[in-house]
Amino acid sequence: MNKIRIVHRSSRLFQPLNPVQKNIQAKNVDLTSLSQKLMLDLGIIKQSSPGSFHYLPLAVRSLNKLTKIVDEEMANIDAQKVIFPTLTYSKLWEKTGRISDVDSELFKVKDRHDGSYILSPTHEEAAADLLATITPMSYKQFPLKLYQISSKFRDEMKPRFGLMRARQFIMKDLYSFDLNMELARATYDQVCEAYERIFKLIGINFVKVLGTTGNMGGSISNEFHFISKIGEDKILSCGSCGYRANVELAGDELQCPVCGNNDKDLIKNGIEVGHTFLLGEKYSKPLNANFMGINSNAVALQMGSYGLGISRILAAAIEVGSLEHEIRWPDVLAPYSIIIISPKDGSKEDSAVKDLPLEMYRTLDGVFCDEVLLDDRNALTIGKRVLDAKRTGYPYIVVVGSKATETPARLEVIDVKNDEQHYLSKDQLVDFLQGNCANKSHSVTN
Amino acid sequence: MNKIRIVHRSSRLFQPLNPVQKNIQAKNVDLTSLSQKLMLDLGIIKQSSPGSFHYLPLAVRSLNKLTKIVDEEMANIDAQKVIFPTLTYSKLWEKTGRISDVDSELFKVKDRHDGSYILSPTHEEAAADLLATITPMSYKQFPLKLYQISSKFRDEMKPRFGLMRARQFIMKDLYSFDLNMELARATYDQVCEAYERIFKLIGINFVKVLGTTGNMGGSISNEFHFISKIGEDKILSCGSCGYRANVELAGDELQCPVCGNNDKDLIKNGIEVGHTFLLGEKYSKPLNANFMGINSNAVALQMGSYGLGISRILAAAIEVGSLEHEIRWPDVLAPYSIIIISPKDGSKEDSAVKDLPLEMYRTLDGVFCDEVLLDDRNALTIGKRVLDAKRTGYPYIVVVGSKATETPARLEVIDVKNDEQHYLSKDQLVDFLQGNCANKSHSVTN
Repeated sequence: MNKIRIVHRSSRLFQPLNPVQKNIQAKNVDLTSLSQKLMLDLGIIKQSSPGSFHYLPLAVRSLNKLTKIVDEEMANIDAQKVIFPTLTYSKLWEKTGRISDVDSELFKVKDRHDGSYILSPTHEEAAADLLATITPMSYKQFPLKLYQISSKFRDEMKPRFGLMRARQFIMKDLYSFDLNMELARATYDQVCEAYERIFKLIGINFVKVLGTTGNMGGSISNEFHFISKIGEDKILSCGSCGYRANVELAGDELQCPVCGNNDKDLIKNGIEVGHTFLLGEKYSKPLNANFMGINSNAVALQMGSYGLGISRILAAAIEVGSLEHEIRWPDVLAPYSIIIISPKDGSKEDSAVKDLPLEMYRTLDGVFCDEVLLDDRNALTIGKRVLDAKRTGYPYIVVVGSKATETPARLEVIDVKNDEQHYLSKDQLVDFLQGNCANKSHSVTN
Repeated sequence: MNKIRIVHRSSRLFQPLNPVQKNIQAKNVDLTSLSQKLMLDLGIIKQSSPGSFHYLPLAVRSLNKLTKIVDEEMANIDAQKVIFPTLTYSKLWEKTGRISDVDSELFKVKDRHDGSYILSPTHEEAAADLLATITPMSYKQFPLKLYQISSKFRDEMKPRFGLMRARQFIMKDLYSFDLNMELARATYDQVCEAYERIFKLIGINFVKVLGTTGNMGGSISNEFHFISKIGEDKILSCGSCGYRANVELAGDELQCPVCGNNDKDLIKNGIEVGHTFLLGEKYSKPLNANFMGINSNAVALQMGSYGLGISRILAAAIEVGSLEHEIRWPDVLAPYSIIIISPKDGSKEDSAVKDLPLEMYRTLDGVFCDEVLLDDRNALTIGKRVLDAKRTGYPYIVVVGSKATETPARLEVIDVKNDEQHYLSKDQLVDFLQGNCANKSHSVTN
């Protein structure tokens, strides 16, 4: 398409800085996590009620990038995207016995005809029921991997840490269906590998550990954690034998149950950002999710369940990467990769190179599609806007400052993460960003 | 990215044809609409409970295309994407007086601390409360247009027509905030024009009519309708004077209230696919959504609300465009634009040009990114698969049949909508599709 592309301008961006939390409920906000504080202060999210948040434009841009990364990795393992309904019949959860296990955490809804539903926190029952109520599928059509990215609900006793323990959260959940346990195990490994690739693309150090199956059930479970002091899980990670497990499973905080290692740094706190389960027949059996075998006999499917906390990954990445007053996004998740700061109104540069900021915007937007923001709040000093840009955490800041009036013009580029600055000609600037900026191929739209 | 692209194959596609509706509730399904029947029969959607549906992979692909069209048009009018929480405090709806107006249609939820929420069917209160509880915005920061595309909930007495009157549905809702009524009116016109562009891109004939404001309130309202005999609204559309209004507003089914025209075809049935409201202060006043005026005084914002029924548009487009047994999607919303049918196992062509289907797939996928599906169910005859492809409604069917063994090879391309077939060389085929296929620039991902 050759149409004129819209210019993304800071003056138009809805980013309410330092929002005053006026509503009564918000007074109880427990600002105990860095990510929560930064995301609220910098207008990324806004609390609406305990554990519920408005996702403001910068959050949505970042979520879209994470969604795109996940979608691409899911396409690579032949997983298909669906949407399961939010409302799930309570009776499906009764059939699997789960409703009594997690009762207090479920939001429940009645329809006007007295039908009972839950606001689904996860969709094992819904997915199994889908397979059970379609025309029986032939064994030839498996393995089957269905996933969605959608809002889930959990009535947390004490929502906290902003997006990390919310009542409404965005989760990516995948359900796999296989003909036997051996094939199910192969699928399980395949999905876990895709999750590892996703975390590597995000670029935050993570650990994959053995996890407990809890009320979810099944035979094998793994958890993916970002290491952080505010993490609510304790992880035993043994440097000697490589055993890694949630302490709930390891059973001992003092020594590794495999090799007996008792180093002091055996235990770390982790933020759980992914959890996978090899479920077997726990859901397929009571809900009759079967396939048609060679002799047209109905055989229970072997299921797996694989959750990724999408909104939690966003917050946890900010939690572990940020400075006290400045957000640091993973490069591939920054809402914009590049911000251009134009001269202050009435400055020497303002009159000398008035058109240069927009020219640079067009040039860079042509290369880094939709990744560039123009800070045109020209009543503010360049210094104030550089500070804002660093706080919001854009990876590259391009300043059209005093050296822009030289011949040839030179622009300042601040590489925020490496805390470096360079003065470059226009061509050098494009080359520099092409060589360094992570987001050439992960544009939000094109 | 130069990585090997995944091949989309019919054999792997989760499209449960002719699903048997086993669950008891589904027996009450009122199959009175063509789109509902076709979307269920062809594995596009699957009912989970009355008015709730699983969106299966083909539905999600189509929804993604519609979302992309909407996102692009919204970017063009400088609207910013957000996510409002599904749970809205009941007290916000009490403050605006709406909770009593629509009480029976609201799903209500209590949290474990006895807090009362509704599952939002729309977000005027949530949006106004957001503006009311952030740091007051300067008059310089308006107009402001915030929108989301998300699941909404309405406890319909009698859900029917599949996705057209569901209990959980996907809506795109936009809220505008302006400094005064004149500016709000200009924004209102701008958003309505964007909606008209969206409907033109979708390519279904629509009418924009005057609508009633109902419990939403405000001074001006317009509705966008697809004309269909199953439409639940009656539209008076006068060929003489051009007056167009919902009969609820026109007040008379026999003659045009403006010019007195009493033609027999004055009244048509319409499916409402969009509804816009110039709200004024109905929500901003009770909820204190203000801006800071020049003298730092708080002044109520003038709001507008603009709904687009995303899931309803999908169903309504299928409703008005399809044949009795074959879906016809708007070209830009077809889940795949092109399907390639490979030779039947053991046929002459199968041995002679075995690699040609995949070669054509790679070629066409290179041009029509992610728009091509390979029907590799080679145990089935070509005829059976052409029939399936027509029923599912892919716009272009490419058959690797007997003429593919000639020198040079010729392929059959069926232009489904125009009911034409052509035998073309490989190069001619690419040229033909490039000249005709709508989806070159609206790929789902890239």
